Amino acid sequence: MSHENDFPEGHCGERAILIRIHDRDNVAIVVNAGGLPAGRRLEDGTVLADDVPSGHKVALADIDEGAPVIRYGEAIGRAVKAIPRGSRVDESLVRSPSPPALKDLPIATQSGPGLPPLAGYSFEGYRNVDGTAGTRNILGITTSVQCVAGVADHLVRRIREELLPRYPNVDDVVALNHGYGCGVAIDAPAAVIPIRTLQNLARNPNLGDEVMVIGLGCEKLDPERLVPPDRVRASADGRSDPPVLCLQDETFRGFGDMVRAMMGMAERRLARLDLRRRETCPASDLVVGVQCGGSDAFSGVTANPAVGYAADLIVRAGGTVMFSEVTEVRDAIHLLAPRAADETVGRALLREMAWYDRYLESGGADRSANPTPGNKKGGLANVVEKALGSVIKSGSGRIADVLGPGERVRRKGLVFAATPASDFVCGTLQLAAGMNLQVFTTGRGTPYGLPLAPVVKVSSNTPLAERWRDLIDLDAGRIATGEAGIPDVGRELFRLILDVASGRRQAAAERLGLRNDLVLFHPAPVT
Amino acid sequence: MSHENDFPEGHCGERAILIRIHDRDNVAIVVNAGGLPAGRRLEDGTVLADDVPSGHKVALADIDEGAPVIRYGEAIGRAVKAIPRGSRVDESLVRSPSPPALKDLPIATQSGPGLPPLAGYSFEGYRNVDGTAGTRNILGITTSVQCVAGVADHLVRRIREELLPRYPNVDDVVALNHGYGCGVAIDAPAAVIPIRTLQNLARNPNLGDEVMVIGLGCEKLDPERLVPPDRVRASADGRSDPPVLCLQDETFRGFGDMVRAMMGMAERRLARLDLRRRETCPASDLVVGVQCGGSDAFSGVTANPAVGYAADLIVRAGGTVMFSEVTEVRDAIHLLAPRAADETVGRALLREMAWYDRYLESGGADRSANPTPGNKKGGLANVVEKALGSVIKSGSGRIADVLGPGERVRRKGLVFAATPASDFVCGTLQLAAGMNLQVFTTGRGTPYGLPLAPVVKVSSNTPLAERWRDLIDLDAGRIATGEAGIPDVGRELFRLILDVASGRRQAAAERLGLRNDLVLFHPAPVT
Repeated sequence: MSHENDFPEGHCGERAILIRIHDRDNVAIVVNAGGLPAGRRLEDGTVLADDVPSGHKVALADIDEGAPVIRYGEAIGRAVKAIPRGSRVDESLVRSPSPPALKDLPIATQSGPGLPPLAGYSFEGYRNVDGTAGTRNILGITTSVQCVAGVADHLVRRIREELLPRYPNVDDVVALNHGYGCGVAIDAPAAVIPIRTLQNLARNPNLGDEVMVIGLGCEKLDPERLVPPDRVRASADGRSDPPVLCLQDETFRGFGDMVRAMMGMAERRLARLDLRRRETCPASDLVVGVQCGGSDAFSGVTANPAVGYAADLIVRAGGTVMFSEVTEVRDAIHLLAPRAADETVGRALLREMAWYDRYLESGGADRSANPTPGNKKGGLANVVEKALGSVIKSGSGRIADVLGPGERVRRKGLVFAATPASDFVCGTLQLAAGMNLQVFTTGRGTPYGLPLAPVVKVSSNTPLAERWRDLIDLDAGRIATGEAGIPDVGRELFRLILDVASGRRQAAAERLGLRNDLVLFHPAPVT
Repeated sequence: MSHENDFPEGHCGERAILIRIHDRDNVAIVVNAGGLPAGRRLEDGTVLADDVPSGHKVALADIDEGAPVIRYGEAIGRAVKAIPRGSRVDESLVRSPSPPALKDLPIATQSGPGLPPLAGYSFEGYRNVDGTAGTRNILGITTSVQCVAGVADHLVRRIREELLPRYPNVDDVVALNHGYGCGVAIDAPAAVIPIRTLQNLARNPNLGDEVMVIGLGCEKLDPERLVPPDRVRASADGRSDPPVLCLQDETFRGFGDMVRAMMGMAERRLARLDLRRRETCPASDLVVGVQCGGSDAFSGVTANPAVGYAADLIVRAGGTVMFSEVTEVRDAIHLLAPRAADETVGRALLREMAWYDRYLESGGADRSANPTPGNKKGGLANVVEKALGSVIKSGSGRIADVLGPGERVRRKGLVFAATPASDFVCGTLQLAAGMNLQVFTTGRGTPYGLPLAPVVKVSSNTPLAERWRDLIDLDAGRIATGEAGIPDVGRELFRLILDVASGRRQAAAERLGLRNDLVLFHPAPVT
């Protein structure tokens, strides 16, 4: 990556800053917060033919019609018409290529020795019976069907008001409400996804081994299916109160009766959770999900590379990093398949891509449906440019494993957890996979938060970080301006992750109590 | 419908009560709350060969293998093996038929003169500019994307605590949160459904013409698309504050700033809503959705016929009744197509059935995915039996119109609004269609409620109504025991609807503050 500064006498007196990532690139992006005006001469002699907003691309050379437009050293598409040097290159000038073919892709060719280990890092976490560690101590109330959501919300309000103040070591109580459970084709092939997602959400490490399931009684998704298998063991050691309560249980004389029973069930669990204390856990107990949302053209050069740097540190320390978002990985799959740890992992990666291609096609769509109007306003021309900037979050390590949507992590290291790119769906699936902390990068800004794990938000540009001081945890925009390097921000993020994981710091969304709903990936029909 | 009582010397001393609906029926259902034991002799001489639980079926004659099992005068399937008289007939003994073919179905052949008008009924409602009437006076906060849900929830808490007490004529404030808006294939063919659902939810008559949309700014669903077209007019008459606020608006210096702006926006609307008063509205302003959930074998003989009776009264009074739930209508379509008001309406009805057949097939499912374990425990053998009992809610009138999922009512009378049968998805779509009150029947029991309209809950059996005194509004179980006739309960329900619509009474779920989430019907892919 190189910063190109023009002559000091430039327009407005402000130094022009552009970022060109790879030597092969024939475009660079404008860093200056106010953009740069037509007529401005850059250091390399290029004269801007158009006004170019911040984050948008400038042609550094004449690009012939049909010739590749190159960023990140990769073609992000071909020129729709001849693009003279100095032009602004927006999405209308770039014809998107087909995604890389999945056949005959080199697999596991870069799987070499792996990253060097990193010792000596730890955080203060809550140790769970199953060997995982929580970064928070939360009572989760799992629900088997949306029908009970109103009751679960009522219950959570009552617990917050009447019980939680008496159990100060418990961080929160959360109802795991969702839109699934009944009125669905529960035996359809794709129903496996929402069902295992709910099963695994109930096992999230931040829920401290406690299980409390509220069901209705007539729904298709049997509430007993949401009790983790290891609870059978746990109930043998004196914890005999049943983990499932169904509202249709004929012993209940109306609503008041149900609420009394549920409050009792909650209190027994709160009492146990309240006895737990943080203890020193190795950094290898981190399960960090990385995600981007509301991306701009800076995301791929500032926030995402810093996350990638931190991801490498976590992996080197023995921890787990999950990256996701199939439609933002699809166009960079030729860069990822070689990083698979072995042939099996590589095949699994390609299988997830192929599944998603078919899924989109069956709904009359393709991966070009991904970029948002906000992405484009932020300077991203298409999903190829978005994907190339997105996968950088995965760092440089080998891909140790691939999870289907809603599956739970089973190997440490860098893991690809296949999910849609939709922020709230991806977040829900990463929680199901066992994530105990999420890192979220954004260029446009989003107040996004999750109910079961802290979300550390990294801005890709400084103006956003300054405007949203109370919503952004770390400013990676300093990388664009040259104030900080990627390793600096990456190490800072790693330390911040350890602090937030330890409860020494709260992430912004957590401090403000902002949390999105759980939104399941539910590709099977409703009935 | 006939009640068959056995001889007084029967087992347990309790009178055996069975319901046979049609003269052709070769099965009847047991009414007695505790069921009836094997060996019991019924009035017609049938001796029970098995214990038969309440709500379950008894063969009143020998049924040969392959012969039709008949209930409601219709074949609900064929006998899997010979069924001797007196046997319990459960789902294992009934082979489901194919659904009625949609080709060559008689259409609009019963469209005759229509039901006789009924004058003199009214309720006290809130008159809206667009001619509709509200039964409640609610501030609705529409959201364009799930990303803003955490902020919207925070806002609603603040408004409830700080503003609502100062505006006593406003019933409630509701955030219309949902799982749509970004990370979706917004141009996919089926995306029209969630988008028009959100557009029409914002226009629900209980939201009093006020519009407040919270967007993020980079999402795919442009928040401006959620402003009803008639608001352009309304903003000309002095209401000049813009209806949309985007969190990414660059004038906001962080979260506190956003919240202040949204509180101001909300307060201006609360002040206007607070000036509204109920006025006498004709019953023709009712838009009542009817729905069943957690059904049992009684639903089709008690609650649903009473709802059908009340539906006829509403239609006769010039009002609108919507029935829905495609998979619970599909197997009774041969009974409904003849009731279409004309050929166009009939074709629209068949088109919705065909669309849903294809939708289910594309997901590897069919309408047999509908009945729940609870339905079966309640005595329903399959979707045919469920459908025959379900469509009775539509009463006996002509079908005046057919709406696609998420469309808004455009004609008064009996309307088929195509929706999934899933309670929470159906409720959301009926709210989008403009429903100002819902009637919900249940046999198994559900605490279901809706955020934008009161839900009147009718139990199909007396034990449920007695157990759930604080959750059930009306007991139709008295019809099964012979204590009341269908017209009695139907008229009682009609009066209750007018009382609840007028705010003179609160429905149970409303009184307890129980409301399900809005769950969109979203058949297009996520990305």
